[in-house]
Amino acid sequence: MIGLSSYAGVMESLMNSAEEQQPSSPLANSWSKIQESSKNQKPKCVGGFVLVHAGAGYHSESKAKEYKHVCKRACQRAVDRLKAGALAVEAVAAALVELEDSPFTNAGMGSNLNLSGEIECDASIMDGKSLHYGAVGAISGIKNPVLVANRLLSEAQKGKLSAGRIPPCFLVGRGAHDWAVSHGIPPCPSEKMASKFSLSAYKRNKRKMELAEKIDTGHNHTKKRRQSSENENGSGCLDTVGAVVIDLEGNVAAAVSSGGLAMKHPGRVGQAAHYGCGCWAENACSMNSHSTAVSTSGCGEHLIRTMLARECSAAMQSEDAHQALLEAMQNKFISSPFLAGEDRVLGGVIVLRCCRCVEPPPSQNIQGILVEFLWSHTTESMCVGYMSAQDSKAKTHISRLPPGTVPGQCLAIEGEKSSLCKP
Amino acid sequence: MIGLSSYAGVMESLMNSAEEQQPSSPLANSWSKIQESSKNQKPKCVGGFVLVHAGAGYHSESKAKEYKHVCKRACQRAVDRLKAGALAVEAVAAALVELEDSPFTNAGMGSNLNLSGEIECDASIMDGKSLHYGAVGAISGIKNPVLVANRLLSEAQKGKLSAGRIPPCFLVGRGAHDWAVSHGIPPCPSEKMASKFSLSAYKRNKRKMELAEKIDTGHNHTKKRRQSSENENGSGCLDTVGAVVIDLEGNVAAAVSSGGLAMKHPGRVGQAAHYGCGCWAENACSMNSHSTAVSTSGCGEHLIRTMLARECSAAMQSEDAHQALLEAMQNKFISSPFLAGEDRVLGGVIVLRCCRCVEPPPSQNIQGILVEFLWSHTTESMCVGYMSAQDSKAKTHISRLPPGTVPGQCLAIEGEKSSLCKP
Repeated sequence: MIGLSSYAGVMESLMNSAEEQQPSSPLANSWSKIQESSKNQKPKCVGGFVLVHAGAGYHSESKAKEYKHVCKRACQRAVDRLKAGALAVEAVAAALVELEDSPFTNAGMGSNLNLSGEIECDASIMDGKSLHYGAVGAISGIKNPVLVANRLLSEAQKGKLSAGRIPPCFLVGRGAHDWAVSHGIPPCPSEKMASKFSLSAYKRNKRKMELAEKIDTGHNHTKKRRQSSENENGSGCLDTVGAVVIDLEGNVAAAVSSGGLAMKHPGRVGQAAHYGCGCWAENACSMNSHSTAVSTSGCGEHLIRTMLARECSAAMQSEDAHQALLEAMQNKFISSPFLAGEDRVLGGVIVLRCCRCVEPPPSQNIQGILVEFLWSHTTESMCVGYMSAQDSKAKTHISRLPPGTVPGQCLAIEGEKSSLCKP
Repeated sequence: MIGLSSYAGVMESLMNSAEEQQPSSPLANSWSKIQESSKNQKPKCVGGFVLVHAGAGYHSESKAKEYKHVCKRACQRAVDRLKAGALAVEAVAAALVELEDSPFTNAGMGSNLNLSGEIECDASIMDGKSLHYGAVGAISGIKNPVLVANRLLSEAQKGKLSAGRIPPCFLVGRGAHDWAVSHGIPPCPSEKMASKFSLSAYKRNKRKMELAEKIDTGHNHTKKRRQSSENENGSGCLDTVGAVVIDLEGNVAAAVSSGGLAMKHPGRVGQAAHYGCGCWAENACSMNSHSTAVSTSGCGEHLIRTMLARECSAAMQSEDAHQALLEAMQNKFISSPFLAGEDRVLGGVIVLRCCRCVEPPPSQNIQGILVEFLWSHTTESMCVGYMSAQDSKAKTHISRLPPGTVPGQCLAIEGEKSSLCKP
């Protein structure tokens, strides 16, 4: 059974003013209205659009305000950059820095601690224009891992190193840390990166582990492993963060950052550093009519083995974005043959797709950019925020699975549609 | 222009004896003959098939004998395991151990040294039956990185860890080393892993780098980076090794192992540790008529950004394996939009695909397994070996680009076809 919260399908014309807001209508029927409305406007330049998430996992009501607040700030940061003329990839990195800096998210500052009580972070970024990609895995002592990933991306764009060496796109561990510092990114003492939340969660998890292992004593190993899979920790705090952005020129970018699973083995790298799994961005081209950007969150191993970011991006070339994402989450994630043995498949995605709106022939003037943005998750909840550069305010939302549905077996899906016009 | 060496298209019936060898014929026309010949045989059990490679790069004539010899030994190791009843994934790991142990290959013992003069290895393995995957990146002090990857795979298959923790599929650096040792894989002093070849290559490369940087002094940074991309080092020693196997039950597996690019930055992880990029294996299922297994070699960054292993695997569901691989190498690699800025796209793949041969209705008895195996590369050369468990001898071959063609812009493609019968 699939649990589905209703697809909002609110179409918003974000071009000039509040008066231009369209009434809510099903997404599938709304496009012609946008075309008509945009014909009657004198389009003004808008600086793009950002959608962020503070993770798919479990967001307590008590911290809901904090989660929403950090999403708002992240949107604002990206929009500030877009308004200053930044490209999508710079804006998405700015959003991620804000998300990483919050002690409430599992990324950068306040990340989950690993088995040894240390923080090791994963992050990656992809530029839909150049299709370049940068990633760091299991990096310690750097406040903003996304900035290292972004720097790897921009260094790779400059071409080869001395003696024809190919610049790296993916660095891990101590080497990643040293590369970052040698490229001017300041180190941060590891002990400063833990928050009171991540430290208390570590102590709680450690006690839980010790208890679980004590209870299991006397059982044989196989039995122990099987039993513990029923543990209540399943859809715990998996708050990898991420963002997707479209800039004024219609370029897309995506990024993701994570402290990884709580109590992970040192050196474990999750989907946030994995090409095609943590984020994906591809500008429209001769083969793809839509530009797409995706960022994922949840259980890294599930997201790696299903390559969920790239799968969702590919699905977004279908006509109906909502239906395509629904099918991708159902067939390529929950029911994926790659996760056949898993009892609960935990993850979430944010997706943005856009295409240029062109007048009918013979004029074929570009009228603007139609942006569709959606999110979907199989975890108990997912916190998202979004903002147009034309708007003065970010919107935030904590999406929850419908009551009575089972995390990892059901999904929620929601989304909206906007149009950005281009001079 | 694409340089193509002719597609051998030799069909071999490897069922019982030399008498059953079919004459050479184009692959496309040979299938019906296999069906006919197998009808007239009393099928005996064979233990599977292995295809290995000692890397896509440059194989000097002076070392050709060594490369071929290690491929032979790797084939023999895998076949020994298959004959002992091992599954494909165990056999492919055994082949890799042999390839890693050779001081002539860039994997395990004798790996390339990084900028700091250290050895850091990447390896991964995928089981087409369970679709599980294990990988290690930038691991030091372990003689056979593929055994760590394989152990990660088998541990993940056992289910969750205590307190519901999800077992890792990808570990890097020090954490990977410690996990390996704690799982009974012995450490190996790093200084023992360098060979006289890798040490002398390090000294040579270091001098070359220092010279290149001296020559560039006085030029501005951008110019320096652009110029050095024309360096002669382009298609140097990129000898990542790998193997693909099908076992008696028709399961496929693939693995890959690499010391990475010479003079890479510490912590750099290449395609050999990257899901979908270094190797891929998928048993046939309701959606895919063919089981496929792929292993890649070459420039890690190019192979990551094009996800070449998975792309080639997906292409192998087409009717004509040779044409499908040709198109994949041309469109998804050499001309890939993901590598638009690269002047020379360097890599190679080995590919194995197989399907069950069924008698026409109404009987529909399974007659055996048709195996097609191919290799293709854009590097100057690629060394491969292959062997059926029914055969007493491995065959080896150093494939070279046609004379006068340019590495990174042209490709060679070759392959053969065999049938294994199943009782």
